[in-house]
Amino acid sequence: MATSNARHDAARRQYEPYLKASWGMKNYWYPALFIHELAVGDTKGVTIAGVPILLRRTAAGVFALRDQCLHRGVTMSVRPKCFSEDTISCWYHGFTYDLASGALKTIIGAPNDPLVGNARLQTYPICELAGIIFVFVGDDNYAPLPDLADDLPVRLPDDYEFRSPHPMDENVVVLGIHRTGNSNWRLAVENGFDPGHQIMHRDAQVILSQNLAFPLGLNPTSPEAITVYGEDGAGPVGIMNEWHSGHYDLVMHNEELDLHPFGTGSVLGLRTSMYLPGVLMVENWPRRGLTQLEWYVPVDGNRHEYWEVILGVCNTEAELKKFKYEYEHLWLPIALHDFNDDDLFAREQMERFYSVDGGVGWDDEQLCGMDAVITGWRKLVSRHNRGIQTPQTHPSPRLR
Amino acid sequence: MATSNARHDAARRQYEPYLKASWGMKNYWYPALFIHELAVGDTKGVTIAGVPILLRRTAAGVFALRDQCLHRGVTMSVRPKCFSEDTISCWYHGFTYDLASGALKTIIGAPNDPLVGNARLQTYPICELAGIIFVFVGDDNYAPLPDLADDLPVRLPDDYEFRSPHPMDENVVVLGIHRTGNSNWRLAVENGFDPGHQIMHRDAQVILSQNLAFPLGLNPTSPEAITVYGEDGAGPVGIMNEWHSGHYDLVMHNEELDLHPFGTGSVLGLRTSMYLPGVLMVENWPRRGLTQLEWYVPVDGNRHEYWEVILGVCNTEAELKKFKYEYEHLWLPIALHDFNDDDLFAREQMERFYSVDGGVGWDDEQLCGMDAVITGWRKLVSRHNRGIQTPQTHPSPRLR
Amino acid sequence: MATSNARHDAARRQYEPYLKASWGMKNYWYPALFIHELAVGDTKGVTIAGVPILLRRTAAGVFALRDQCLHRGVTMSVRPKCFSEDTISCWYHGFTYDLASGALKTIIGAPNDPLVGNARLQTYPICELAGIIFVFVGDDNYAPLPDLADDLPVRLPDDYEFRSPHPMDENVVVLGIHRTGNSNWRLAVENGFDPGHQIMHRDAQVILSQNLAFPLGLNPTSPEAITVYGEDGAGPVGIMNEWHSGHYDLVMHNEELDLHPFGTGSVLGLRTSMYLPGVLMVENWPRRGLTQLEWYVPVDGNRHEYWEVILGVCNTEAELKKFKYEYEHLWLPIALHDFNDDDLFAREQMERFYSVDGGVGWDDEQLCGMDAVITGWRKLVSRHNRGIQTPQTHPSPRLR
Repeated sequence: MATSNARHDAARRQYEPYLKASWGMKNYWYPALFIHELAVGDTKGVTIAGVPILLRRTAAGVFALRDQCLHRGVTMSVRPKCFSEDTISCWYHGFTYDLASGALKTIIGAPNDPLVGNARLQTYPICELAGIIFVFVGDDNYAPLPDLADDLPVRLPDDYEFRSPHPMDENVVVLGIHRTGNSNWRLAVENGFDPGHQIMHRDAQVILSQNLAFPLGLNPTSPEAITVYGEDGAGPVGIMNEWHSGHYDLVMHNEELDLHPFGTGSVLGLRTSMYLPGVLMVENWPRRGLTQLEWYVPVDGNRHEYWEVILGVCNTEAELKKFKYEYEHLWLPIALHDFNDDDLFAREQMERFYSVDGGVGWDDEQLCGMDAVITGWRKLVSRHNRGIQTPQTHPSPRLR
Repeated sequence: MATSNARHDAARRQYEPYLKASWGMKNYWYPALFIHELAVGDTKGVTIAGVPILLRRTAAGVFALRDQCLHRGVTMSVRPKCFSEDTISCWYHGFTYDLASGALKTIIGAPNDPLVGNARLQTYPICELAGIIFVFVGDDNYAPLPDLADDLPVRLPDDYEFRSPHPMDENVVVLGIHRTGNSNWRLAVENGFDPGHQIMHRDAQVILSQNLAFPLGLNPTSPEAITVYGEDGAGPVGIMNEWHSGHYDLVMHNEELDLHPFGTGSVLGLRTSMYLPGVLMVENWPRRGLTQLEWYVPVDGNRHEYWEVILGVCNTEAELKKFKYEYEHLWLPIALHDFNDDDLFAREQMERFYSVDGGVGWDDEQLCGMDAVITGWRKLVSRHNRGIQTPQTHPSPRLR
Repeated sequence: MATSNARHDAARRQYEPYLKASWGMKNYWYPALFIHELAVGDTKGVTIAGVPILLRRTAAGVFALRDQCLHRGVTMSVRPKCFSEDTISCWYHGFTYDLASGALKTIIGAPNDPLVGNARLQTYPICELAGIIFVFVGDDNYAPLPDLADDLPVRLPDDYEFRSPHPMDENVVVLGIHRTGNSNWRLAVENGFDPGHQIMHRDAQVILSQNLAFPLGLNPTSPEAITVYGEDGAGPVGIMNEWHSGHYDLVMHNEELDLHPFGTGSVLGLRTSMYLPGVLMVENWPRRGLTQLEWYVPVDGNRHEYWEVILGVCNTEAELKKFKYEYEHLWLPIALHDFNDDDLFAREQMERFYSVDGGVGWDDEQLCGMDAVITGWRKLVSRHNRGIQTPQTHPSPRLR
């Protein structure tokens, strides 16, 4: 027991930075909204890693700036007021900011105030890809600005036998939803690619309907069970469960309880991997030839925005129509809901044990062999993050 | 005034342990569920003194174990999964525990994990009596295990003139309810046997319907007004208001306001007493020949589970039928509700003043002569408890 | 930037007491209820600056005493019990207080208890004026008791050209409402007479319907833009925006955004001023010849009671009838609601930034030239208050 504690503590010391990352990591690309959620003329507010961000689309594109007026700190997006194409004015006192630079361009009732031209709100880089608006959240003018591709899952070689769609593929179509989960983002990540929670999904409709031989559990038998990406400093940083590599023991029988998987269908090509800042890729899921991606975007210390999208490649209108139909009538209800609702439930159940407000989970959890990839993830984040976000209580940075 | 504060502080020093017992006492028998609430095959979760406890009844009886998986801390009872008669499996990762010993018997997806056979959840002794499942909550393997009888009200001699039913009597029938009260358990206890709050019940249906000469107040005139049980270390520890002993002044008139009781009927034999860990006995209530018992089971620092039961002795089927009818149509609405709803209201009103989250009541209350028995109770608990429960934030004890 | 911070910090040091006044100021007259809200025989409870106060009207007038029984701290007004004309009894244990003196006159069930005659609850002076019951909240027996007139707006000379009604005028009629706002009282005050938030009210019905040339903003051009009252120690202490003095620049055009007021009607005579303990006077509003007063009565650190009343002088029954009709059908919906609902919204939006529970607004706000009167108010309160209320957690003062 002393041994067990000592080993636990030694492991813990290797991921101290991760334990401090309650509010997420900074200087990463995060999904903010689906493109279809922000039409020209729309203004919306999101919160990412505690940072309030206003997004506005004009004819010139999407702009993002801090959603907190410099003057009295109110959230501008709750009553967006735009009196010119390239500005937004705070609804309260008329502080008016340039959308592109964040500069205080005028104060409606005090055009000659010395603050005008001498203050600005932070702005955030934007990138649109695969139906999603990504925003780069972090330090002001962080340079060099990483490529969005570095914060997405790895793009596997075209000739890989079980290759499934990637967001940068030609003709990729991305369909999905996002919703708020009441748990810390790390619990969501650790749930996402956890090889040990198969039993929870035993009765899932997506498994039963395809008669899949979903293993009872997956146990790494050598370090090669896990591939780590990005240690060399290039491309995405992440960790992959090599389920079909021969280095994972796929448990098909529990003798003690005499349990087997229900189905017999192959799950070859199905594989999970996780990338910084918290992006899950599930290859060949919810069926062979599709990919499911998930993001767990930190909102604050106790909530995350849960993104669930399915990627298909549609080379013709007919394929697109079919994929949309299949998504709406099948994958949305049985994968993104029935299956993933259970995941959301599990994370929220863990929240109290691990809560940033006094939970003891990080100290008292008892991890087992199946959790090797989770410990690996914690260490990877601790070594390679671009910055740990400090808990935010609406600081208004004084920028000039 | 200085004198008054000094006297208050001196009294307070005699019950310091009680002031620390926000989360209750440990190493006691507490009611968990009515027997009829847990049929064979049922699994339910309760929280007692901050400890999450899972109860499951199989053909072999009732089992209780800590309702928090060792692995990631989730509450197992929210989705009970049992794959064999003598185990329960956590719904999340399949950690499977022996119901009787709490030992980790298998992990569904990792049967060969070194944790299997080397970890266990705490289990809790169970005792069923008088329609109630009692659970012993406290230290692991606390020994010797006290008798349930020691944590119940005293059993008065058979030849006592006003003897009313006791839970260990032959043919006793117990009917009642339990519900959650939003106050600390100590406020509930102190309300329960308080001889000073008669005025609140002045208009109660149970009193008016029986035309009882319920006194306006009860004032102890000598130390003999109160009997203390268990100081010698044997049997229940408790304190009894000897209302009809001649050592209590039963106030029947307040001159200042010209107030009298409404009724004229005798309340001889009616008496209240309180036992550790917080069990009230009201003899000959709600009518001569019945007993009302109440428990105020700590849930956390701000809530208690309020148990209200009425005991009758039924030697024949006809008596049983009559008692059940009388309970359902009379005592349930007018005693357990109309009368005790007022008590629950009073405790919840006190909660803010005494709240464990910053209330000042324990310091600023101004007790008076009628409160002697309450101060006596506080001191008794402070001298004789088997342990004060520390505030719980879901610690997961590492047991082997 | 260093300069800017240094200047901000120097200003801040001049209003440190104000920054500590989260729970308001003590030893002031505050409105508690409208007279019509407390008929003979009524008992109601209010909370002012954290102090629970019970108000009761008998044939002899209105009485106010601390709404917290000395014994176990419960709020008496939740179940008022009066067994004689000049007392109130606590519903729980019958502690009975003299309404006028607060003295403990009897305990219903313990008339001979030594506490009787030797304990009392604090009472609070009452003054009824202009339809409102005012209560003096502060230290016990604070002397000399200030005149209510000192805690109202200044009464302007009868011959002042734009004079509008004052609560002490003959035949004044006061109509209005009060409701709870979820923000600190200081945010409410600062919103009330803020010359910079005109843009928020640009589309208000009360402005559009009267075609008012409401300026885009008001910028002080010399210290004479602001008149300070009460620095000499006599009469109300307050600060007035002299909008039409020639020392305020009324901005009628923002060139950057090419914005103008919509209307052309004169707002001559319209002026705002604020007095301790937080009383706003808006002269000639919502139309020439009327006055709007507002109070922002601290409830606790995060809430205020928002009082909005309109004063008219009615010398005949016909004038009274007309004023009431006009109030109900016009000023209530378009001024006290449409216009002031926006103000309430603004305060609640600021709350998070300035919250007493961890907000950073007081440090991070970036005030501008239009905010001179707000900074002036903060300093005035800091120099002239009769006492800063300490955060209240229901202390029960031991009085004799």
